[in-house]
Amino acid sequence: MPAHICYLNGQFLPDRSATVSILDRSFLYGDGLFETIRVSNGQPRHWPRHLTRLTQGARFLRIQFPIPQETLLPQALHLIHLNNLPEAILRLTLSRGTGPRGYSPRASTHPALVMTVHPAQACDDSLPPHWHLITSSIRVNTADPLTRFKTCNRLPYILAQLEADDAGANDALLLNNAGFVAESSCANLFWIHNDVLHTPPLASGPLDGITRSRLLQLAAQLNLPLAQTDARPTDLHACHGLFLTLSTRNVIPVATLDGQPIPAHPLIRLCHRALRDQND
Amino acid sequence: MPAHICYLNGQFLPDRSATVSILDRSFLYGDGLFETIRVSNGQPRHWPRHLTRLTQGARFLRIQFPIPQETLLPQALHLIHLNNLPEAILRLTLSRGTGPRGYSPRASTHPALVMTVHPAQACDDSLPPHWHLITSSIRVNTADPLTRFKTCNRLPYILAQLEADDAGANDALLLNNAGFVAESSCANLFWIHNDVLHTPPLASGPLDGITRSRLLQLAAQLNLPLAQTDARPTDLHACHGLFLTLSTRNVIPVATLDGQPIPAHPLIRLCHRALRDQND
Repeated sequence: MPAHICYLNGQFLPDRSATVSILDRSFLYGDGLFETIRVSNGQPRHWPRHLTRLTQGARFLRIQFPIPQETLLPQALHLIHLNNLPEAILRLTLSRGTGPRGYSPRASTHPALVMTVHPAQACDDSLPPHWHLITSSIRVNTADPLTRFKTCNRLPYILAQLEADDAGANDALLLNNAGFVAESSCANLFWIHNDVLHTPPLASGPLDGITRSRLLQLAAQLNLPLAQTDARPTDLHACHGLFLTLSTRNVIPVATLDGQPIPAHPLIRLCHRALRDQND
Repeated sequence: MPAHICYLNGQFLPDRSATVSILDRSFLYGDGLFETIRVSNGQPRHWPRHLTRLTQGARFLRIQFPIPQETLLPQALHLIHLNNLPEAILRLTLSRGTGPRGYSPRASTHPALVMTVHPAQACDDSLPPHWHLITSSIRVNTADPLTRFKTCNRLPYILAQLEADDAGANDALLLNNAGFVAESSCANLFWIHNDVLHTPPLASGPLDGITRSRLLQLAAQLNLPLAQTDARPTDLHACHGLFLTLSTRNVIPVATLDGQPIPAHPLIRLCHRALRDQND
């Protein structure tokens, strides 16, 4: 893995030598938020949507931004330029920073802002390789207000991914506490049944994914029949097409769920193209 | 806050200049575990219990120790000696360390081990000051396997503590998803009703606290009537005494819950003394 330049609290430096204090609260408690953003042709895609979600999370957790939010994009663009990586993934982390020992964040007034870039392949017309999914034993708790935000508390998703790794699968499906499908460890979930596109409602526990909400808007614009549906894994086994949405790759088709083949469906390629071509 | 010496992956250095990579997974995802250990007369109290809990969590999350576990205590003792802090709190953090981007920990093979010390007052015969508690809106999910371990995913407890801060209280009571009391943001909970000591069972979602399990053993040795009981906040309002247990201070009596006074009870002092005098 070659070193890249990262952004850390106003400085640009090699990511391998960039560090935070061992007293940083995101290190101690996962007390932070992050965004993972696709960069294409040197531009972070859907920046306003990512910044809005990050800002909402920061307001909820009461973490201040260390710099004015409008200065973030110029810094991100400079970082992408420094790395000469027009096709990349940009991770932005906002930590509450250091403070006195204990859970209370009252005296923590030095937030940390980090941006790293990671190489990615250019998005072309072809669909990414199909993934194999298993159903995780980890459940999403719909009563947890933190599921709405992309926080640095990610152990449930790491455990789900570990189960996928163990099974030789690419990713794992998480159900919610009522037994309905919610999301995968790193993506939102859509399926097709009788030419209708379905996705779990936000109340069922998935992250409010950027690509998910873009696809909901595009489906309305393209008059694609769409429903927000609570479904059980057995419903997915009977579906006519299944795919994941995530910011880094738009769409990933699913080949199997728990070892059972999932059919391909032409709507998946249509969604892939529509997402790729959307510019806002 | 004066600087102290900390331990970081085999080195002893000032905690203010001790850092971890911005690619460390505990910073990125809270992918780590910790223990908070009372130090008295230069000795970490109940070290084997803390090490056992940490080891069980590490096995569950599949995080390796970077050094043999039996070398940890000598390093901790050296750290306490270097800081000349015979009365202290020792925090031990085990992070999965750095690895490739993404949730899968498969290629993360460089765990990080950090120990910090924080000054504390000597434990004497007097009870600590009474705390004021509120009931938090945050719920503990009893189906979450992570509640059994002291992981670095601590945002629910930070949110609960924020609610306490807002209300001018010291700490917040967390209920579980069934509406029964589970724990406080940083401690286990005991109450007294008709001279019987009660605490929520582990199945109700509290952390398996070291001081909680010590007190359960002591109660059996001292023939104190004890029950593991599911209770609602209304039951606590009708109790005859309420206190918290935590490693750093043994016992903290509760003065009020949601603004309503809680009576004092002689059993609280008895528990405080029994815990203080226990040596294992």
